[in-house]
Amino acid sequence: MVVILKNNVTEAQIEDIKKHLEDYGFQVHESRGEAKTILGAIGVNPGFDIRKIKILDGVTDVYRVTAPYKMASRNFKEENTIIKIGDVEIGSNEIILMAGPCSVESEDQIFRLAKVVAESGSKVLRGGAFKPRTSPYSFQGMGLEGLKIMRAAADEYGLLMVTEVMQISQIEIIAPYTHIFQVGARNMQNFGLLKELGDTSIPVMLKRGLAATIEDWLMSAEYILANGNSEVMLCERGIRTFETYTRNTFDLSAIPVVHERSHLPVVADPSHATGYRKQVAPMARAAVAAGADSLMIEIHDKPEEALSDGPQALLPVDYISLVQELKVIAKAIGRTL
Amino acid sequence: MVVILKNNVTEAQIEDIKKHLEDYGFQVHESRGEAKTILGAIGVNPGFDIRKIKILDGVTDVYRVTAPYKMASRNFKEENTIIKIGDVEIGSNEIILMAGPCSVESEDQIFRLAKVVAESGSKVLRGGAFKPRTSPYSFQGMGLEGLKIMRAAADEYGLLMVTEVMQISQIEIIAPYTHIFQVGARNMQNFGLLKELGDTSIPVMLKRGLAATIEDWLMSAEYILANGNSEVMLCERGIRTFETYTRNTFDLSAIPVVHERSHLPVVADPSHATGYRKQVAPMARAAVAAGADSLMIEIHDKPEEALSDGPQALLPVDYISLVQELKVIAKAIGRTL
Amino acid sequence: MVVILKNNVTEAQIEDIKKHLEDYGFQVHESRGEAKTILGAIGVNPGFDIRKIKILDGVTDVYRVTAPYKMASRNFKEENTIIKIGDVEIGSNEIILMAGPCSVESEDQIFRLAKVVAESGSKVLRGGAFKPRTSPYSFQGMGLEGLKIMRAAADEYGLLMVTEVMQISQIEIIAPYTHIFQVGARNMQNFGLLKELGDTSIPVMLKRGLAATIEDWLMSAEYILANGNSEVMLCERGIRTFETYTRNTFDLSAIPVVHERSHLPVVADPSHATGYRKQVAPMARAAVAAGADSLMIEIHDKPEEALSDGPQALLPVDYISLVQELKVIAKAIGRTL
Amino acid sequence: MVVILKNNVTEAQIEDIKKHLEDYGFQVHESRGEAKTILGAIGVNPGFDIRKIKILDGVTDVYRVTAPYKMASRNFKEENTIIKIGDVEIGSNEIILMAGPCSVESEDQIFRLAKVVAESGSKVLRGGAFKPRTSPYSFQGMGLEGLKIMRAAADEYGLLMVTEVMQISQIEIIAPYTHIFQVGARNMQNFGLLKELGDTSIPVMLKRGLAATIEDWLMSAEYILANGNSEVMLCERGIRTFETYTRNTFDLSAIPVVHERSHLPVVADPSHATGYRKQVAPMARAAVAAGADSLMIEIHDKPEEALSDGPQALLPVDYISLVQELKVIAKAIGRTL
Repeated sequence: MVVILKNNVTEAQIEDIKKHLEDYGFQVHESRGEAKTILGAIGVNPGFDIRKIKILDGVTDVYRVTAPYKMASRNFKEENTIIKIGDVEIGSNEIILMAGPCSVESEDQIFRLAKVVAESGSKVLRGGAFKPRTSPYSFQGMGLEGLKIMRAAADEYGLLMVTEVMQISQIEIIAPYTHIFQVGARNMQNFGLLKELGDTSIPVMLKRGLAATIEDWLMSAEYILANGNSEVMLCERGIRTFETYTRNTFDLSAIPVVHERSHLPVVADPSHATGYRKQVAPMARAAVAAGADSLMIEIHDKPEEALSDGPQALLPVDYISLVQELKVIAKAIGRTL
Repeated sequence: MVVILKNNVTEAQIEDIKKHLEDYGFQVHESRGEAKTILGAIGVNPGFDIRKIKILDGVTDVYRVTAPYKMASRNFKEENTIIKIGDVEIGSNEIILMAGPCSVESEDQIFRLAKVVAESGSKVLRGGAFKPRTSPYSFQGMGLEGLKIMRAAADEYGLLMVTEVMQISQIEIIAPYTHIFQVGARNMQNFGLLKELGDTSIPVMLKRGLAATIEDWLMSAEYILANGNSEVMLCERGIRTFETYTRNTFDLSAIPVVHERSHLPVVADPSHATGYRKQVAPMARAAVAAGADSLMIEIHDKPEEALSDGPQALLPVDYISLVQELKVIAKAIGRTL
Repeated sequence: MVVILKNNVTEAQIEDIKKHLEDYGFQVHESRGEAKTILGAIGVNPGFDIRKIKILDGVTDVYRVTAPYKMASRNFKEENTIIKIGDVEIGSNEIILMAGPCSVESEDQIFRLAKVVAESGSKVLRGGAFKPRTSPYSFQGMGLEGLKIMRAAADEYGLLMVTEVMQISQIEIIAPYTHIFQVGARNMQNFGLLKELGDTSIPVMLKRGLAATIEDWLMSAEYILANGNSEVMLCERGIRTFETYTRNTFDLSAIPVVHERSHLPVVADPSHATGYRKQVAPMARAAVAAGADSLMIEIHDKPEEALSDGPQALLPVDYISLVQELKVIAKAIGRTL
Repeated sequence: MVVILKNNVTEAQIEDIKKHLEDYGFQVHESRGEAKTILGAIGVNPGFDIRKIKILDGVTDVYRVTAPYKMASRNFKEENTIIKIGDVEIGSNEIILMAGPCSVESEDQIFRLAKVVAESGSKVLRGGAFKPRTSPYSFQGMGLEGLKIMRAAADEYGLLMVTEVMQISQIEIIAPYTHIFQVGARNMQNFGLLKELGDTSIPVMLKRGLAATIEDWLMSAEYILANGNSEVMLCERGIRTFETYTRNTFDLSAIPVVHERSHLPVVADPSHATGYRKQVAPMARAAVAAGADSLMIEIHDKPEEALSDGPQALLPVDYISLVQELKVIAKAIGRTL
């Protein structure tokens, strides 16, 4: 932590600030220039609230020197985390595709779509059984029955499955079926849920909240890591900005930034980021070009009848053709897909 | 719902669009101008996803005519909702003050601060026993023990209490103690929690999420209302913007806007909105002037030792002097406090 | 400037970084902790691009210790700037009201409204003769003729006038008429215009840009101050956020923040901030309560016929009644109006 | 325009609203459902302020049916605009690369870099002679002398040139030298400048403002188009959001959205969008994959000595290697580069 003192700070104030720092457990270094005095405080606890120093008399500004996240940082672990589930490795040189419907709607539907996913060469089947909906009047998901038929479909076609967990009580219901827990954007700071997921040994895909900075996102990953589950992947799915012609703003520059700051793999979700089918393909291509380790894409063969998010689902034929383009882009940047 | 058709829409497309609308259960009215054809679709289900129509060939734009929330709207209930708890009425002409520490830290601390709250003429004691913290390394609250001593302090000084519930399993732990459940900004779209709170008969204070539009916020209130609990108050506590000199941007214009669109009372929280003690008093004054029905303010007599959010807590002496100013402003706009 | 080095920085890198700093003219102080090494660099030029250091090998982060603005800062000038124009003092204990139509539309219109402004006890007449409009198809202002009749109306009723200057060539056209130049939000970073206004001796009201941080805003003020014109007032008029139920988000917390960081007076413009008549009065009250030194409010006696921004204009009768409320609030916080 | 009436609207109010619409020159269609009455108003002037209707008694909401821009829209002109300058076509199937330093700094520098640009196969040399700088204390550009040496360098290597125009008085200074005028993000709504550029016959590259919606951006293009200059290209360079780990948020989804709504070509500028060298290459790749018609990239052979924006400049060797990757991605999506 670096503490910048005011130009007109008094000696008494400096002593008082140093005493506070020492009382909080810091080792203090002082650096006096002609105009400015700066205190370096070593030994900051990641949970320390720097505003405690900022409000002291004589202080202008305080900067945190170490990132507030620890286990999620590249400093803590130099090499990339690769999450291995059976034959699939997320975070390796191979880009992993996850696809499927927004919601599991029927046995017939999920089997039809799992077949498409497998035929396209994708490795993971996505689908929601418990659905977080902005409106209480919208379809809320098939629940346990949905999980069962989704796992059957995944097994039938040699796929892994990923599905969303919305609350603590669902963890033990979902755990027997899924290979990856998805935490939705609206739950990114549901800390109780994150802690409990940290107690499991199932990989977690943590979606970025609509208003979450990259730092907040890594802090939420830290909750899972600190509780003992090291298999966390991050999923960029758009942030909220002033723009209204798109549903969200897909923050693709988060991909290289996370890769620099953290060792965790990054998934990109162009379907939720854009909200409209026409923009999914260009944004999927862009996400691969930007360095995403995995893509999650919604597909549906009867999008007009879909019980949720049909307008953003790709048709199977369009998905299969998109996958071919993605392979060429992956190769252009030295990766496989 | 209003559907705007493209300039070059064909008759076949118009028929197809009308058929889709009818299949979704709408009654359709057609209006043809020289350049534009517009379809009015009556009977929209509040949970209907308008993108289903937006993606049809021949459609330019679709607008929802009715708000997606229903029970939260002023159309549904013309007169202001007044939440009565004992002698206290939130949403009436009297502005209700809620104050207390961020976290309950000890029996001594909460009794000292409850005394200040009562002496200032405020009616509700705030304090957290279960704390949502961005960092897993920060203090997480005293839990049940905190609830017990907080309620004892409130009772001792004739105050009501409000405290945060973070997850479903805490509802039954907290219910015997609190008069008002607080739902934090990060849980505003924790729909499972909202539904369960809708099943209780305890008033709920729903904080606005950092990236929540006013519409999202009212939709989340709708979850509680639709499940049977009509005693919901909304709390503005700042939204996330690009500005970095303040912790959040306190959106005071949300107050008159919510009052126009909804019958629910609005609480304003200048402490979390600004994050720094110096800005709390001017923003508290502004919130009363803008029409807030209630204010929630953090106070602490030893802010440097506070286990959370000390930098934004007012000292008791400053709080008592602020209350005097607020009384004059309330009077200036024809209200009491 | 404070330079934070990486945990694994090498001695050679430290030497290289120090050499760079010295070459850029800094005096360097080194502070080594167990885990972290920090360099303090004294003597930073306000225009220095700190990214030059951030990209050096071995550097984690760089923080600017001094604000990038200088003459606009409270450090540079401790006491409040009070702008005196005739009998009017902006930035003093008295809150100054500015009111008038969005656009000057006719001699009759501006005289009628100037009369209202004077009768309400307000001191400054606002009105646009050159209008920045988002659409090229909208009314663009009366130009020189508008200036003449506006000044005549101001003189007739003993008022000062403020009007917008949009481009350099308008400075000499407007200068003979106006008492205050207004720079609009969209021109806040039109640096050529700011420099030229710095060469005049007429006070400037600088509106905050829609995406401008408080720091950007003070930097733009610095352009005017650095060129020799010390009479700058800042005007908060709403920033752009994700919220769509309001036209902009009125950032009232900017008022106490600017007062802490700068000596310049702050004007608040609730008309442009909200965009709708109904929200203007509550937000005007809130702005006074938050500490604004002046308010700028649009009024019109025939808003439905106004050539621009009629929907946000208050009727004269409502304006006069608002002024009475504002007087009481001003008194509550120890100011006059 | 569609006008939604309140549930409890009276017949008298309906008549009044219709009269207003007719007085404003609209042709009115009425559509009555069981619960809702909707008025369609045909013939809207693109500059009409819809708030004039929104404030009438009995009105709930008003939606603009036609986009507020006209000549910039795909409805107005179905086929893509291709801007031909000599042999170069911007907006065609070939992706055009523009590269060069942020600022022209010396004859030697601009010749060295023009050579790199030409050798990489790029077609346009970028470089600033007049520089908009946030700080008045930063380097403000070489001015006329910079233009002369830049044009000489462009001619020597068979390149076109693009340079920024900041104010009206610079148009005639720059016109003899440049092939494309660049309008910077901070000037996107400098309407006087846009009008004057509309009077020239030199192509204009209009950068998106930091807080500009896509609609605002197209409206600003409309100013140039409406004044007679049809050769406008749009440049996405990042928008301002709450994220602080990147300089701006690069809104790549704007590319497919603009292509759907408008016929104008889209340039992407990953250098300004990200602000740091390391993120430029992944974002350049992503921009091509997302469908950009052209890329503008900053390069410098001695970035540490650059007078502006050195930290975001690519080294020549890295630029040349990036171009090779971009060629493969372009081919993957059926384009040339």
